[in-house]
Amino acid sequence: MSDTHSLDTLVQALRRLPGVGQRSAQRMAFHLLQHDRPGAQALAQALDAAVQQVRHCRLCHTFTEAEVCATCLDPRRDASKLAVVETPADQAALERTAAFRGRYFVLMGRLSPLDGVGPQDIGLHELLARASDGLVQEVILATNFTAEGEATAHVIGQALKARGLTVTRLARGVPAGSELEYVDLGTIAHALVDRR
Amino acid sequence: MSDTHSLDTLVQALRRLPGVGQRSAQRMAFHLLQHDRPGAQALAQALDAAVQQVRHCRLCHTFTEAEVCATCLDPRRDASKLAVVETPADQAALERTAAFRGRYFVLMGRLSPLDGVGPQDIGLHELLARASDGLVQEVILATNFTAEGEATAHVIGQALKARGLTVTRLARGVPAGSELEYVDLGTIAHALVDRR
Repeated sequence: MSDTHSLDTLVQALRRLPGVGQRSAQRMAFHLLQHDRPGAQALAQALDAAVQQVRHCRLCHTFTEAEVCATCLDPRRDASKLAVVETPADQAALERTAAFRGRYFVLMGRLSPLDGVGPQDIGLHELLARASDGLVQEVILATNFTAEGEATAHVIGQALKARGLTVTRLARGVPAGSELEYVDLGTIAHALVDRR
Repeated sequence: MSDTHSLDTLVQALRRLPGVGQRSAQRMAFHLLQHDRPGAQALAQALDAAVQQVRHCRLCHTFTEAEVCATCLDPRRDASKLAVVETPADQAALERTAAFRGRYFVLMGRLSPLDGVGPQDIGLHELLARASDGLVQEVILATNFTAEGEATAHVIGQALKARGLTVTRLARGVPAGSELEYVDLGTIAHALVDRR
């Protein structure tokens, strides 16, 4: 129907969001137009502002509005340790633990040959350059424990070791607070192998 | 972190979408900024355009960019039948059946006293005026078969009957293609009572 062109366009635009299908997009458009038009305008402005202002930190590749992000600039950070994570959300998860005070390199993705994501897309070259800056003594691979995250850690680890760097990986094991009876076999097997 | 202000603002704006929490909003913001900046700009433009152009049909209250929507203007529609639905999505579901060629009144919501949604918010006054235009001979209540939808149908039905109008309700019963063994008891009970 031509008299709902802008509504149809909005639904199609919302469908480009990850995890949003036709029905979710329709529900979102209905909600915004019927109940929260200020929210729709705020979202439009936030999208424009973020697209214009957010870029990648020159050193660690995470999102920032400056040339170098606040974490990389922080002089209290331990420059001898570099954690490699997939996304800013993963970085935030590590930060919340307050157990790591080193620096980060954010891949902004993971190796995924089937999706056409190769080493250049995760900044492997820049990571190798940063890890070889003479300050970094240990690179901690903190990619996800998924198939793609493991493969990414393997490829990065090989490249770093080839340059004589110390490479570690986050420990695999039984999650805190869990009962063995309910933990999957693979996790228990890893916890046995990596026992200390 | 102040160097990610526009990113934080975007995440907060995305959280205003229905069904989107903190993690979904972060994932959406990451996807848009890392993989689909044109999509972010398209969404911003679509939001602005929809907020500016979409309004409600003067006759049936559905979303339209004109004063009166295409369905209300269509002369091939049967003006003697008026279906009352909650949302444009419900209207679209009825349209897809091709089993109804009458006109619509879209409540753009449902009665929900706990959320402060009263008769004026669903346009009850306008519905009564439209149903009393002399053309409408039957009002078909097609609100959802939820507690709120049923209550809405009850209230509207009482008001319409008080004006001497013929009021019907969509049939309740066993869904097409289903096996009785797997249909819930309430549905089977309704199908028994409404047997024909």
